[in-house]
Amino acid sequence: MNQVIAGIRPLDERSMEEAKMRQDNLTKPQGSLGQLESLSIQVAGIKGVSKPRIAHKVIFTLAGDHGVTQEGVSAYPSEVTPQMVYNFLRGGAGINVLARFVGARVIVADLGVASPLERSPELREKKVGMGTQSMAKGPAMSHAEAIRAIEAGIGLVEEELPGGIDILGTGDMGIGNTTSSSAITAAVTGADVAMVTGRGTGIDDEGWERKVKVIQRALDINLPDPKDAIDILSKVGGYEIGGIAGVILAGARYRIPVVIDGFISGAAALIATTLSPQVKPYLIASHQSAERGHRILLEFLGLKPLLNLDLRLGEGTGAALGIFLVEASLRILEEMATFAEAGVSEKKGP
Amino acid sequence: MNQVIAGIRPLDERSMEEAKMRQDNLTKPQGSLGQLESLSIQVAGIKGVSKPRIAHKVIFTLAGDHGVTQEGVSAYPSEVTPQMVYNFLRGGAGINVLARFVGARVIVADLGVASPLERSPELREKKVGMGTQSMAKGPAMSHAEAIRAIEAGIGLVEEELPGGIDILGTGDMGIGNTTSSSAITAAVTGADVAMVTGRGTGIDDEGWERKVKVIQRALDINLPDPKDAIDILSKVGGYEIGGIAGVILAGARYRIPVVIDGFISGAAALIATTLSPQVKPYLIASHQSAERGHRILLEFLGLKPLLNLDLRLGEGTGAALGIFLVEASLRILEEMATFAEAGVSEKKGP
Repeated sequence: MNQVIAGIRPLDERSMEEAKMRQDNLTKPQGSLGQLESLSIQVAGIKGVSKPRIAHKVIFTLAGDHGVTQEGVSAYPSEVTPQMVYNFLRGGAGINVLARFVGARVIVADLGVASPLERSPELREKKVGMGTQSMAKGPAMSHAEAIRAIEAGIGLVEEELPGGIDILGTGDMGIGNTTSSSAITAAVTGADVAMVTGRGTGIDDEGWERKVKVIQRALDINLPDPKDAIDILSKVGGYEIGGIAGVILAGARYRIPVVIDGFISGAAALIATTLSPQVKPYLIASHQSAERGHRILLEFLGLKPLLNLDLRLGEGTGAALGIFLVEASLRILEEMATFAEAGVSEKKGP
Repeated sequence: MNQVIAGIRPLDERSMEEAKMRQDNLTKPQGSLGQLESLSIQVAGIKGVSKPRIAHKVIFTLAGDHGVTQEGVSAYPSEVTPQMVYNFLRGGAGINVLARFVGARVIVADLGVASPLERSPELREKKVGMGTQSMAKGPAMSHAEAIRAIEAGIGLVEEELPGGIDILGTGDMGIGNTTSSSAITAAVTGADVAMVTGRGTGIDDEGWERKVKVIQRALDINLPDPKDAIDILSKVGGYEIGGIAGVILAGARYRIPVVIDGFISGAAALIATTLSPQVKPYLIASHQSAERGHRILLEFLGLKPLLNLDLRLGEGTGAALGIFLVEASLRILEEMATFAEAGVSEKKGP
């Protein structure tokens, strides 16, 4: 982990300047394609080339269970986590549909589902534990497990490098993981628990009040150190969240644009950026989730989401759509004619 | 025109109910795919089938010039309108790149460019006039021309029906057309001119103040009737805006989802919905433009934009991205597994 973090470099300024110059010469008013322009410039800086191309798109969907579900914080039972993993492996879930549509491959990994999973050539086995402990009673996992979860995520990316990764998306599956993500968000940003706690998969008012109390208790008894990402992850995190943090770190290390999904991936990004602020320029926020707390999280990270479709499914579904928009931005950069090529008059002088 | 308007029917409730029921049984918390769910249900209602499919995607990009450019309201000279039409025909513009990327064909039409254009098999010739008159001095066009512009737009759609149109996007090109669109928006919504006037392709503060005054003068001398769409279009509109209104009416008539682009297409939608409020359920707003006034326009139409990327190019670029999102929503509806198919547990009872 430390080696990967030490290997993260700033974006390449020269490639960004070249991309910016080209954008400004394409046949459109300067800046008129808004975030499609800035995205293409960011990706140029990430990849260190002035006209980056994307062929291999990979979405990492990581699963884990959460002991905190014992406290009645979720609308669905924990057995849904393994059931959905099998759904991913059969290609029937939302992420499978959207990944196929945008031409991305989905890497499904078990970081800590609370039951043994049937082996499958499509399933990456990275189990750190059989679900976390309830953070309302003590640390969710040990310090060593937190590091192992992050390293498992790094490993997932490194194993896929030979197959090609030009852009990656992050995704999650884990009943109870919005509870953990709210706790991480409160711990890192210092926001009130109620302000960063939403309804997850759909709890009612009573369930929401219980969820807020459970998160507050978890923070009170564990006292995570806001500056120590491993401390936060071990006390109130989850195995899949640690894994996603590892995927994000590896993305930055290997100069791959990292399209983060919604609230859970955002919490993982908080862990990753607390470990190394150098990760930030590699991040692209795909969407503004319907989950309360996500806005505060994105503002803390300084990220402007590309989409606002009231998504709250996770799995990487928002990231898949975000990958499409990044690719669109690169097509613009590469394929549009310049004023000179097209013989179009430029803006009038002042 | 009147026959087309008379032929517009409400959405098919039964197909919408069937699509909604299927969405609620797919392996995700109900509503967790937000606007992707509601979009798929809307399109089911538009097409009158419970699992609609999209194969043929068409973007109509209509060009016209504006006499009001004489008043110094634009950052670019009028000669850019025909230059950009040629750029469209050669495939070098933003709309060409994004349409190729989403698999849509672009229909480029001259509704009223102020110069003769070279003939091309790719250019649809629908010229109503050699650019409008300056609306700051009198009506932009005659009442008869306004109707001809709308009918030309209807004709464009009808001519493409044999080739297949499963979804359509609207787009515009016309130096000066944000000035006209602001005037239409002020006339229809009753909003203050300054609140609906933006910087178009990029005028400075002084230019903006002049633009506001010009629009106010145009409204004061022409006094368009807010309830009479043809009156508004003829007095402060544009040929391409009338044409787009026709494309929108024809989309609704032939039960084709209509993905509207930014501010200019929005102004055309105001014309179309003033002619017939039955058009509204056929509309999908692709994005929230950076152009001031677009928000007020969309709120007036009751539309929630899918994207907010600070786009302000027009041409149909936002519509192309919107078409992609509609298609994504239909893939979800069609391809995701249900709880029963996947053996996934449903939400816990209350």
